[in-house]
Amino acid sequence: MRKKRVGLQSNRIYLSERDIPKRWYNILHDMPKKPKPPLNPKTAEPISIDELAVIFAKGLIEQELSEKQWIDIPEEVLKVYLLWRPTPVVRARFLEEALETPARIYYKYEGVSPSGSHKPNTAVAQAYYNKIEGVEQLTTETGAGQWGSALAFACSYFGLKCKVFMVRASYEQKPYRKVLMQMWGADVVPSPSKETQVGRKILESTPDSPGSLGIAISEAIEVAISDDKTKYSLGSVLNHVLLHQTIIGLEAKKQLDKVEEYPTIVIGCVGGGSNFAGLAFPFLLDKFYEKRKSLRLIAVEPAACPTLTKGIYSYDYGDTSKLTPLLPMYTLGHDFIPPRIHAGGLRYHGMSPIISKLYADGFVEARAYTQNEIFDAAMKFFQTEGIVPAPESAHAIRAVIDEAIRARKEKKEEVILFNLSGHGFFDMSAYNDYILGVLEDVVLTDEDVNELTRKLSSYPKP
Amino acid sequence: MRKKRVGLQSNRIYLSERDIPKRWYNILHDMPKKPKPPLNPKTAEPISIDELAVIFAKGLIEQELSEKQWIDIPEEVLKVYLLWRPTPVVRARFLEEALETPARIYYKYEGVSPSGSHKPNTAVAQAYYNKIEGVEQLTTETGAGQWGSALAFACSYFGLKCKVFMVRASYEQKPYRKVLMQMWGADVVPSPSKETQVGRKILESTPDSPGSLGIAISEAIEVAISDDKTKYSLGSVLNHVLLHQTIIGLEAKKQLDKVEEYPTIVIGCVGGGSNFAGLAFPFLLDKFYEKRKSLRLIAVEPAACPTLTKGIYSYDYGDTSKLTPLLPMYTLGHDFIPPRIHAGGLRYHGMSPIISKLYADGFVEARAYTQNEIFDAAMKFFQTEGIVPAPESAHAIRAVIDEAIRARKEKKEEVILFNLSGHGFFDMSAYNDYILGVLEDVVLTDEDVNELTRKLSSYPKP
Repeated sequence: MRKKRVGLQSNRIYLSERDIPKRWYNILHDMPKKPKPPLNPKTAEPISIDELAVIFAKGLIEQELSEKQWIDIPEEVLKVYLLWRPTPVVRARFLEEALETPARIYYKYEGVSPSGSHKPNTAVAQAYYNKIEGVEQLTTETGAGQWGSALAFACSYFGLKCKVFMVRASYEQKPYRKVLMQMWGADVVPSPSKETQVGRKILESTPDSPGSLGIAISEAIEVAISDDKTKYSLGSVLNHVLLHQTIIGLEAKKQLDKVEEYPTIVIGCVGGGSNFAGLAFPFLLDKFYEKRKSLRLIAVEPAACPTLTKGIYSYDYGDTSKLTPLLPMYTLGHDFIPPRIHAGGLRYHGMSPIISKLYADGFVEARAYTQNEIFDAAMKFFQTEGIVPAPESAHAIRAVIDEAIRARKEKKEEVILFNLSGHGFFDMSAYNDYILGVLEDVVLTDEDVNELTRKLSSYPKP
Repeated sequence: MRKKRVGLQSNRIYLSERDIPKRWYNILHDMPKKPKPPLNPKTAEPISIDELAVIFAKGLIEQELSEKQWIDIPEEVLKVYLLWRPTPVVRARFLEEALETPARIYYKYEGVSPSGSHKPNTAVAQAYYNKIEGVEQLTTETGAGQWGSALAFACSYFGLKCKVFMVRASYEQKPYRKVLMQMWGADVVPSPSKETQVGRKILESTPDSPGSLGIAISEAIEVAISDDKTKYSLGSVLNHVLLHQTIIGLEAKKQLDKVEEYPTIVIGCVGGGSNFAGLAFPFLLDKFYEKRKSLRLIAVEPAACPTLTKGIYSYDYGDTSKLTPLLPMYTLGHDFIPPRIHAGGLRYHGMSPIISKLYADGFVEARAYTQNEIFDAAMKFFQTEGIVPAPESAHAIRAVIDEAIRARKEKKEEVILFNLSGHGFFDMSAYNDYILGVLEDVVLTDEDVNELTRKLSSYPKP
């Protein structure tokens, strides 16, 4: 008979491949009040399916507008998910010990995916729907490269060409994600480029332009519109993207069920909102129906780009060049170019319309942290749990640690679940800056925000 | 009732934390013929325990000389192992499909450890035994940084200081593993340094010396000898290091048992030999006793450093400066500085005495590949299985693919198990070189080896 050994506790909760969720959860079905529709950027009328179909695959537009509660995951998508899914839920016992907290802390680890974050959950689905509709190429933009590498991976599995417009500054300064995309066969173009009208125009006036996400989006959309075998792909913000990410929370629920746990607090970082939504929405479903009325959901953002905590709720464009539909969301204004913080994935002026509505209606809390605050937390996590977190995910960790310390002070039992949305192996220069003590804390002030959002006063109200 | 869905097969075999092996396997107990003992480098007499104790903790020396078959893993070590262990065994179905092979391919994935390779399996054990004997600091050398980061991690968990002499060329060219070590609190010193006599002497004559592993070892040992609260730590080659790594194979056996599989071929890359040994020895145990007489074990090395395939079997020094004991091993000569291939972990002139003896006695096969051969294989693995392999591990993958193709041609059912000993996220510049087509294929010729090993003819025979 095996003797029980003290101290050898289970940390990781796995889910067998057989038990992977077979459907995505669509929160639009259950929201007490739903967000208003996207508007045509020229007419300010609700945008039509045909207008969207120039850019996106029809299967994805259907999902964008659907209010069906559950949507089947195609078997071809599940097959690719199984390369890395289900991802583990891990009890962060070493972190708990270090914090001397009564809270039990769990993280869902999405960094085990091929490109190292949660992004492939939607990239694979988007590539699939485009493939079955006869699309031959997808275009997209990328900053530091997380989204671009996820889409490059997905395209390689479905035999699609992939063209990624990568912000030139990142293309030159962070070459390794570029290499990763190229290893999956993607065509990575520094933006602004000579391949588009938008790009050529900018290069004429500013030959050494470092580029921006706004410019890269415009280039990607221009290429998609000009060829009917090419579509555009977006990595966050939109309803169908958030839908695909719900596999995260659906798995996590099953995993916590196995150890008879249910969270009291769910935490994720937010840029466009997809990783937070992916983990939180399946739990929000319970909160809507009062089964878990006291459940708290916390969205964490950078103080340098405080969309929820300081932005205003308005219709606004998704990009600098006003090519996208007008979306009802919290925004810092479409002209805002966020400061160069290391959490590149959170440098977005807007926010998912669904999350914006949930926040406006009080279902979700939000808070913002500076760079040094989040790297302090990332180092604590690294030194206890042995994983280098992505700077984006470090925002969630900061909130987790603060809540765990509060639980200790209040002697309160909490069960905290958070999304460790990616690893930080491609962000070591950021950690080097932290060690050297040269990280800057940029905080957007109320005056800054007033200035940035002034013109939105004439835009439609959400 | 749940309907069975075709195509959703299990890829990953997990082992629960409860079932983690509680003992290491010591192959010395079962080897039909054992390797001869290490010799004092000055007297050429078998080295005494007291002589070894100047450098190593007593607990480790005991293990180095022990012939006990099973050695208990201390609970404090198991507790840290549980941060990432048991590691998964994965069925490489996507790779199998791409190769159209009847072979079933499994890999044990050690890249999930905090420092990204198998190295912490021994680093944690070594830090523990030093800690309980009152040692306060460990020193070591590192090339690209895999071993140094593993030891930095282990020391941080047991509250030991850690000083890593890092070959200066790597310190300057590959800063990210240095950052990783510093994040765990290690003191990383570019070698040659001004902190040791050896270092100062070299810097006097060659102020811009790029350093070498040989120099770094000498510096680390010099510091260890000069302070009785400081010991030295080695990441491969020695018996106790291989012992600690057997947890890999012991786990893998349990995991394959769960799916009723047993390998026909076990494959690993070899530098000093520890990751190959860790996976292979528990299976060799069966082969010794004829239960699995036909089992094949393949050690894979670089054509630029072909220790087993072209070296000679002789007593030789473990380092360039002749500070270590004389070891009975396959060697290319202690003066050999291997060419600058990307698989830094395999750039070692010698080989573990145990593996050398097993190879000499015909229990283990060996083969060598060039850089382009192994990166071809790494890319195939990456594009099918979605993991960037370390260049070291890519050597094993090349052999796996060749065996799988042979199985297809011969229409033979094989069950191949290999050690994916680490991830390649810190080796993206190597993949960039591959994509750009600038990787050099260096092959050591017989004439080179004759020249390098000539002086060994007067050394003791193993």
